[in-house]
Amino acid sequence: MEIKREKDEELMKARHSLAHVLAKALLKLHPETKLTIGPAIDDGFYYDIDLPHSITPEEFPEIEKVMREIINKGENFERKVISKEEALKLFKGNEYKTEIINELPDGEEISLYYTGDDFFDLCRGPHVDSTRRLQNYGFKIHSVNGAYWRGDEKNKMLQRVYCYAFKTKKELADYVNMLEEAKKRDHNKLGRELELFTTVDYIGQGLPIMLPKGAKILQILQRFVEDEEAKRGWQLTKTPFMAKSDLYKISGHWDHYKDGMFVLGDETKDNEVLALRPMTCPFQYQCYLNKARSYKDLPLRYDETSTLFRNEASGEMHGLIRVRQFTLSEGHLMCTPEQLEDEFKGCLELAIFMLKTLGLYDDVSYRFSQWDPNDKEKYIGTAEQWEEAQSTMGRILDHLKIPYEIGIGEAAFYGPKLDIQIKNVFGKEDTLITIQVDQMLAEKFGMEYTDKDGQKKTPIIIHRSSVGCYERTLAYLIEKYAGAFPLWLAPVQVKVLSLTERNADYAKKIYDQLFEQGFRVELDDRNEKIGYKIREASSMKIPYLIIVGDEEEKNGTISIRGRGFENKSGLLLNDFVARMNEEIKTKKI
Amino acid sequence: MEIKREKDEELMKARHSLAHVLAKALLKLHPETKLTIGPAIDDGFYYDIDLPHSITPEEFPEIEKVMREIINKGENFERKVISKEEALKLFKGNEYKTEIINELPDGEEISLYYTGDDFFDLCRGPHVDSTRRLQNYGFKIHSVNGAYWRGDEKNKMLQRVYCYAFKTKKELADYVNMLEEAKKRDHNKLGRELELFTTVDYIGQGLPIMLPKGAKILQILQRFVEDEEAKRGWQLTKTPFMAKSDLYKISGHWDHYKDGMFVLGDETKDNEVLALRPMTCPFQYQCYLNKARSYKDLPLRYDETSTLFRNEASGEMHGLIRVRQFTLSEGHLMCTPEQLEDEFKGCLELAIFMLKTLGLYDDVSYRFSQWDPNDKEKYIGTAEQWEEAQSTMGRILDHLKIPYEIGIGEAAFYGPKLDIQIKNVFGKEDTLITIQVDQMLAEKFGMEYTDKDGQKKTPIIIHRSSVGCYERTLAYLIEKYAGAFPLWLAPVQVKVLSLTERNADYAKKIYDQLFEQGFRVELDDRNEKIGYKIREASSMKIPYLIIVGDEEEKNGTISIRGRGFENKSGLLLNDFVARMNEEIKTKKI
Repeated sequence: MEIKREKDEELMKARHSLAHVLAKALLKLHPETKLTIGPAIDDGFYYDIDLPHSITPEEFPEIEKVMREIINKGENFERKVISKEEALKLFKGNEYKTEIINELPDGEEISLYYTGDDFFDLCRGPHVDSTRRLQNYGFKIHSVNGAYWRGDEKNKMLQRVYCYAFKTKKELADYVNMLEEAKKRDHNKLGRELELFTTVDYIGQGLPIMLPKGAKILQILQRFVEDEEAKRGWQLTKTPFMAKSDLYKISGHWDHYKDGMFVLGDETKDNEVLALRPMTCPFQYQCYLNKARSYKDLPLRYDETSTLFRNEASGEMHGLIRVRQFTLSEGHLMCTPEQLEDEFKGCLELAIFMLKTLGLYDDVSYRFSQWDPNDKEKYIGTAEQWEEAQSTMGRILDHLKIPYEIGIGEAAFYGPKLDIQIKNVFGKEDTLITIQVDQMLAEKFGMEYTDKDGQKKTPIIIHRSSVGCYERTLAYLIEKYAGAFPLWLAPVQVKVLSLTERNADYAKKIYDQLFEQGFRVELDDRNEKIGYKIREASSMKIPYLIIVGDEEEKNGTISIRGRGFENKSGLLLNDFVARMNEEIKTKKI
Repeated sequence: MEIKREKDEELMKARHSLAHVLAKALLKLHPETKLTIGPAIDDGFYYDIDLPHSITPEEFPEIEKVMREIINKGENFERKVISKEEALKLFKGNEYKTEIINELPDGEEISLYYTGDDFFDLCRGPHVDSTRRLQNYGFKIHSVNGAYWRGDEKNKMLQRVYCYAFKTKKELADYVNMLEEAKKRDHNKLGRELELFTTVDYIGQGLPIMLPKGAKILQILQRFVEDEEAKRGWQLTKTPFMAKSDLYKISGHWDHYKDGMFVLGDETKDNEVLALRPMTCPFQYQCYLNKARSYKDLPLRYDETSTLFRNEASGEMHGLIRVRQFTLSEGHLMCTPEQLEDEFKGCLELAIFMLKTLGLYDDVSYRFSQWDPNDKEKYIGTAEQWEEAQSTMGRILDHLKIPYEIGIGEAAFYGPKLDIQIKNVFGKEDTLITIQVDQMLAEKFGMEYTDKDGQKKTPIIIHRSSVGCYERTLAYLIEKYAGAFPLWLAPVQVKVLSLTERNADYAKKIYDQLFEQGFRVELDDRNEKIGYKIREASSMKIPYLIIVGDEEEKNGTISIRGRGFENKSGLLLNDFVARMNEEIKTKKI
């Protein structure tokens, strides 16, 4: 069932009007400012300006004050249509507006919007009728970043002035407050504080280093995923991370995806050019192609814990979410047309099982990503093939009662996708998991099976992930749990603290027993105040602390502090171990 | 304790003499042959010749016949010293010999060796006194390969005529027989037949694709290694597979190892050049560098299941042993000088434990790889640093009573190594595992710890593997067990065969029970003759076959065929499961 999200037109109009108010204020303070564009965005608006003086945060209140003055004056927004010649004349000294005007198709109406008599901007509108309408709005300039004109690094770097804007001051305050809370959960900050990962300048951007605690979580996740998939009939493969260009020429990646790939060597010089893989598909197909297949072999389900590489621009890198190397829980399934719906359902059930187990299920939404019939460059196959693939997939989704939005132009170059979307702690949406139906690549690779009737036929391929990219999933888990992971995932599950120096040996004995039994355990037998030791362990979000002093030592017991457990004394280690084991076994969240 | 292997000088002299006999025979049959060089090798000798006519296997008997005639004549080998001018004149038409002569240092004696009156070759000797001494020898031309003059692909491709040669015909026959047997175990053949891996032309050489059965063994091995290492106090990391050239410039790889690396981008054009890692060292050091360290933190043991890339020439690729991408059970350990011996011992014990568990321990030997003081280009550090590192390591090895050979010029560029060597089924030796002591790289990366005395000091690093490269280790395991893996490693542990069509449901029930319990099990319920089904399963070297017919179905039992088990009927599934579980738990080999 397709669902559509409504945009708040009124709010977006007000934000864009506020962008004009900001522009007017900036011109008042810095008459040499060259305006470019100033669109409304999800939480406010920005304006890109060319100005030799660098605006600093100290100036934000002054700019806001001037904006507030303009608003309080109740200036009208008035539209005026002008000719191209007039427009070019008016914006003569502004190369950015000139460029925009010159690119307007002939015959398109060109309009100015005035704010009061003394300010106008080239603009398509719409706007509110008067700045009076903005009086209740809460807005706040929050940052100035560098941004290339038109996002092209060959162009001049401009200043992008970002501003939050909401219908009331209360809504603004709530939003800013939410962001403050979000910052504390931000995986890119918290993940470093918890020693899960780090990055290093001389290694490079988008290449995070998983420290032991982060690597441990990934190891646990990977084993869980591989084992669960094996139970569901997936066979693990391990295919190479690079191949000759020849492979990518067959798959279509060379023509449709080369810019996103790391290429080794120079096509014009070397007789062998290799490239790092951006996807596993054409590699995993080789397992299918390893011998002749019959309908009895289908469905064939191959999974892989697959490392992939994407050559993204440095500026786009972010923590564990936008990276140049990542590990995907990937799979490809070859089936007959009759098996498609059941198998698609199986893939979806697998993904949902994973999301539920990890506690992320309530946070996702679905997106049916389709091709853009007007962008033939980006896709292989004919319009008929796309119609068929998309209508098949639509039918399956409707049959399975999946509520989805449609994303035009967001399909893979070889087929439509069901994307499972998730928002990060700042509200930014990303794809966590995708399931794709592909009726084209099998043919390109000559993949066949002999059907019941003795005829050679081409299988349909489902490309799918079950838990997404491990690094990205870890990022969402950090934010979801604010670093306090469920016990089965926690890199350190329990820490033993000695109350005094006298109890160090007893603490070590408890530690050894837990280590022997395979728990991830740490020991703090330093001669420090217990309050200090507890605070330190708590800041690392360790689920359970075992504290042992003279009393515990005498009685052979332990005291506990931890989540979901009132602080408790006089416990037997074995009872506590049984409780932890149960919590781990059930993957309690 | 250093040990030295003796070479059989007599045998090598005879082989080299036989090379002259071969050359004489070739000249007789093809007078236009240009001779180049013909050294003795481990199992015989070869001669590289430039000859327009391509020698085919059909011609081998004729060549051998002429060789035998020369031998039976009892021709003398006679040495004659000549001047450089004479030599250049004699070999005027032969550009290869001319090149060799021109490269001889002035004053070096130049000698010819005659075989009879009518053949001579430029040669340093020594030789046997007469071809009569070769009469008992068994020899056999076995192949002709292309070989570039001086191994340089810019030079002309010559024909390399290979010949086995042993002291007696019996020894030759035994050797050829051993090779026949070895071929059946050759991992590069058997591994494909058992569907463990494959290679694909358009993906590239040295990039094997692990099919589900091979990937399963690697998964089992990886988990076993990671778990065992965790028990021994190693902390898993997961570091990126590429970095900016900046990193490799600090580590020294850029100056000392760049030719072996895959570089992404062009230093002369791009402002950021990345390279795939050939080693994990400088990446894993970042985990150490993530925070300040004290002597109390040491030893710090980091392990990683690490993918590495080496840009080797296509011609050198072989199965799973010489590859361009591989996965190493790698580790780096930072310790104080006082901890070094104990920690080195721990690394060695870990490697030995792995080798014993896998059943490879009896096949290995040790090699103490040292620097070459005459090759300063290849190594960093001063002679003093090398002396110290090597004498420290020598002392530790002697203390641990490790019997080793010395390999000069085989150290890593930053330190000496203990290499654990293994021979493949054809007798070719390779390094399986190395343990290195490094007193140089920590300083380059500014790695420090605060010692008891409050001083900042530089830790010593041990680089080590525990089980070697997974792909290579798998190759040796295939050859060791001729594909019949121990039960705990077998990709398929048990297969259920129905005796007749009537028993298909019962077979499926047995299969389901085993699958549920986590066994790697296959089902063959096809309506085929049981003999055929057994032969097929046996050829895949599946440890246990369960056969069920009417009798078994009626009694609720199973019949077994398998290794270490007499064929047995009337067994209860549960009893058999218990037996398998015991075999798996003890990792029986």
